[in-house]
This record gives sequence, C-alpha cells and structure tokens, in this order.
Amino acid sequence: MANIPPNKSRTVYVNGEYVSETEAKISIFDRGFLFADGVYEVSSVLRGQLVDNAAHMARLERSLHALQMRAPATAQDITAAMKRLIRENKLDEGLIYLQVTRGVADRDFGFPASDVPSTLVMFPQSKSLIKSPTAETGIKVIFMEDIRWGRRDIKTIQLLAPVLAKQAAAEAGKQDAWLVQDGYITEGSSNNAYIVKDGKIITRQLSNSILHGITRRAVIDLADILHMHVIERAFTPDEARQADEAFITSASTFVFPVVEIDGEKIGDGTPGRIAPRLREIYIKNALENLE
Amino acid sequence: MANIPPNKSRTVYVNGEYVSETEAKISIFDRGFLFADGVYEVSSVLRGQLVDNAAHMARLERSLHALQMRAPATAQDITAAMKRLIRENKLDEGLIYLQVTRGVADRDFGFPASDVPSTLVMFPQSKSLIKSPTAETGIKVIFMEDIRWGRRDIKTIQLLAPVLAKQAAAEAGKQDAWLVQDGYITEGSSNNAYIVKDGKIITRQLSNSILHGITRRAVIDLADILHMHVIERAFTPDEARQADEAFITSASTFVFPVVEIDGEKIGDGTPGRIAPRLREIYIKNALENLE
Repeated sequence: MANIPPNKSRTVYVNGEYVSETEAKISIFDRGFLFADGVYEVSSVLRGQLVDNAAHMARLERSLHALQMRAPATAQDITAAMKRLIRENKLDEGLIYLQVTRGVADRDFGFPASDVPSTLVMFPQSKSLIKSPTAETGIKVIFMEDIRWGRRDIKTIQLLAPVLAKQAAAEAGKQDAWLVQDGYITEGSSNNAYIVKDGKIITRQLSNSILHGITRRAVIDLADILHMHVIERAFTPDEARQADEAFITSASTFVFPVVEIDGEKIGDGTPGRIAPRLREIYIKNALENLE
Repeated sequence: MANIPPNKSRTVYVNGEYVSETEAKISIFDRGFLFADGVYEVSSVLRGQLVDNAAHMARLERSLHALQMRAPATAQDITAAMKRLIRENKLDEGLIYLQVTRGVADRDFGFPASDVPSTLVMFPQSKSLIKSPTAETGIKVIFMEDIRWGRRDIKTIQLLAPVLAKQAAAEAGKQDAWLVQDGYITEGSSNNAYIVKDGKIITRQLSNSILHGITRRAVIDLADILHMHVIERAFTPDEARQADEAFITSASTFVFPVVEIDGEKIGDGTPGRIAPRLREIYIKNALENLE
C-alpha cells in the first residue's frame, strides 16, 4: 500500500516492444485513455517467478469475453512476455501489471472496426511482498459508500472510486477503505474483505458486486484444507466492528490483517491468529508452486 | 452518432504542444490510462467558433474540484488553445474534445505527489452539426439498466457503461440507449433525455444521478422563453413509451428527436413539433452567441 519508489530504468512492454519506461507511450486516441475501455491483471512475483498466473490469465480471458474485447495474444504468449519482463528487469520480488484496451480509433462510443488491434501494455513493480512491515502491524480501514459501477466482477480500469477511497483513507491516517452498499460490506477498495467471528471466517459471496479475487480463491481453498470454517455471505459494518479478527487478500498484499475498522479496535488491536496463519500458509504454498 | 471518419492529418494538443495526431502520445503511466482518473468536456464549433464554451469551462472547473484535481491551465489559456486548434485545423463545424487527467506517476491508487502536473489533451472532430440527417429523421432508443457509478454529475472518463450501451443499441439497429435505474429513466448514454406529454416537457431533475448538461440548461432556458412548460422530475419507462414526443440534448447533437422508444413508436413515429422547434431556436441562439 506504500508509495512505490520510481524506477526510471525499468523496461516495460508496449504492443510487442520492450522499451524504457520513459519511452513507453500510447496514442491519446487509445480507448483505454478516452473511455476506460480496458481491463487489467496484477500478478505477483516471488523469487523471479510468477504466482498463480494461470488463474490471472483465466480471469483476463473472462474479463475480455464479458466486454466482447479481443485478446491481444494467447495466454502462453502473454505469460512468455511477462517472464521476459521479469528477466530483463531482474525482478526478484514484486508485481507484473498487465492492461488490455480496445485499441486506437477516433473517438466514438461504439466499438471500433473489428480489425482494430487491442492494446497490450505490461510493466514490473519491485516490491517486498513476503517481508512486509504492514503484514506485521496490520492495517486500519475506514468505511466508504460503494459508488462503483454494477460490474465489479469484470476487472476494468474504471478505478476512480478506489482511487478516491484510498486517498480518503490516507487523509484519515488509515491504510484502506471498506466499501459499503445497501447496509453490507462489499469489499476493500482493491482487495477482498474478511471477518472472523467465533472461529468462523466470513467473506462476501461471489456476484457482480465484488471482484472474484484470485488470492481470495486460493486462501479459501487453503482455509478448507486447514479445516477452518469459511462462510461466504455478506456481512454488515456492525459485524465488522465487532469481529474477533479481520483481514484482506489481494495479489499484491497476499493476506494483511486488519486491526482497526471505522475507529474500532479489532480484537486486542493486533493481527490475531488466523490471518497471520493464512498468510504463512499462502506464501509457503505460493513458493512451492511458482512458474 | 455516426462513425466519424478518420482524419490522419489533424493537429492535436498534448500538454502545450501542437502535434500531428499520429505523434500524439501520452505515457502508459498516465493516470487517465491506468485508473480513468480524469475528466473531459466536448464543446461544439459552428462557423469556426465555440458554442457556449464558458459554460463548458465552468463545468470543467467543477469536475476538477470534485476530484481534487489541479487545473492544467486557466480557462482563458485553455480556450485560447482550443481556438488555435480550430484555426490550425481549419475547423468550420464540429467538436473540440478536451481531457484532463491527474498526470503521470508510477501506479499507486492514492493521489501522486502534489507537484505532478495534470495532463491536458485536446483534439478536433469535424462533423456536420446543423445539417444533420439524424435530426430530420429522429433516433430510436432501447432501454438498458443504468449500471454506472454514483457520481454521474462529474464528467469523468469512466465511460465503459455508455460504450456498452451505445454498442448494444447499434447491434439492435437503434441509435442510442436510455438508461433505467430503480424504475426511472436517468438519461441517455451520452445525452439528457426528455419526453413531452400534454404539451409539457419532462426531464429528470439535477442530482448525482445524471450529467448536468450544458445543452440541457440552454434548452430549458429557451423553452422558458418560448413559454413552454418544463417539469424537472424523474419519469418512468412506461411514461416514455406513451409520450407524445421525446428528444435528447447534448453538445454534439444539440437537440435530436426520438421517434421510437423500446420498440414503441412515439406519437406518429415522426419528430413531432416541439423538438424540431427547440433545435431551430437553439441553433439560432448559438449562432448569435459564438465566441
């Protein structure tokens, strides 16, 4: 969640070319720039290898399909380019960001001609993922009204609401916002949200209202293996404030404990037992399944 | 609403530079591209001069303020650049598109450092606005669920829902979609929506649910001058289907009659009397107040 230091010497990917980030440009007529007509994925990298990338490629395909957007390349070719970016940037630990847009055309709302190629850009971000001070201390979250559009299951670049939520959290001296709609938490601004009550892990069920997190899926599967009881249902702000523990998951945080919600200390205000345990198992499992 | 023909020799504006559109590029790290963290305006041009541009500049300032985004230049300087674009492109009739984003920074949701300059891009589109075949025939619209985010009063570049709505309309052989939320029409996909019943013009009142159209304001003022009765309230899909007349307004269409809604002919299926009259008066007034 911290600011990522600028790294002006990165090599990034733009439509088949590997270029310096200072030369990485797209047309002002790109539909990603004019209409937010695009989707993205963020894969984490540990020991110079991708974590759970097949699942990210599958979700990318699902997002593209939902928007009738053509794939810019096969999942295999995209993955190969991601790996080349990792090598060329000597990326040991961090993220590979990937974005596909509906390409370049004069501005007009309807889809462009079918022969307009998609735009594909990718870049690495170096970041300490395993040894994270935030994972040790946990994060504090505020509540914000969830004003995002109705298809949060599609991972689009329409991210202004999360931008405003993250900024509001930072201005309040906290690290994130949990979004609330119709009396229930949907999710965090860029992560899935969980509470623990009486030993049970509660997280919102999948629907158009939340992102179908890759890390969410992995963590729920691991919790099952550990015989932890996971209930997928919506929970309220009051339940969250009164939880025994709380945490978030995402590709860039793995599992982060939540120690304060809307000003209320969660448990004794320290990370608790379940989130650190899930984080440990998640990382162990990720390291055993790198590609 | 028709496809705008490509015009590869346009001169466009990118952060203070006037360049050929083929050279008009921005960084892949522009927050407009990564987060849809930007706003826009579209001003119409008649006889090589701007229509109602002061109102567009005022709305731009309002959008920027709502998102705590810094202005890229004064309204005066932006207007001067728009006029230079009109001159350099010998634009007689059409549009000037303008977009401001929160600038270029490594990808991180929260706002970048306060010294990061906003991005400003502008480009012209040549288009016949006064002599429009569509204004003669009217348009046909379908209904779509309004799934946009909660702040439609801010003119952001989060336009994927309108893109999908316009595309769905085109695939149905129609020209636009009217968006429906909680049992009421909000507006068209990129325009304000009106019905006429028993001589009264009905259009949704201003709120966060709709764009505060510049052309909407001008047309309502003109209707008042003509002693037409305008009621600002939400109306239902049923009311729309049973209207005597219907129309839309926007900076790029002025006033277009709507002759079919959700498969129902409106009136006798021709443009009616009120919309063509408002269009005529709007254009006359615009021509008398060019800048």
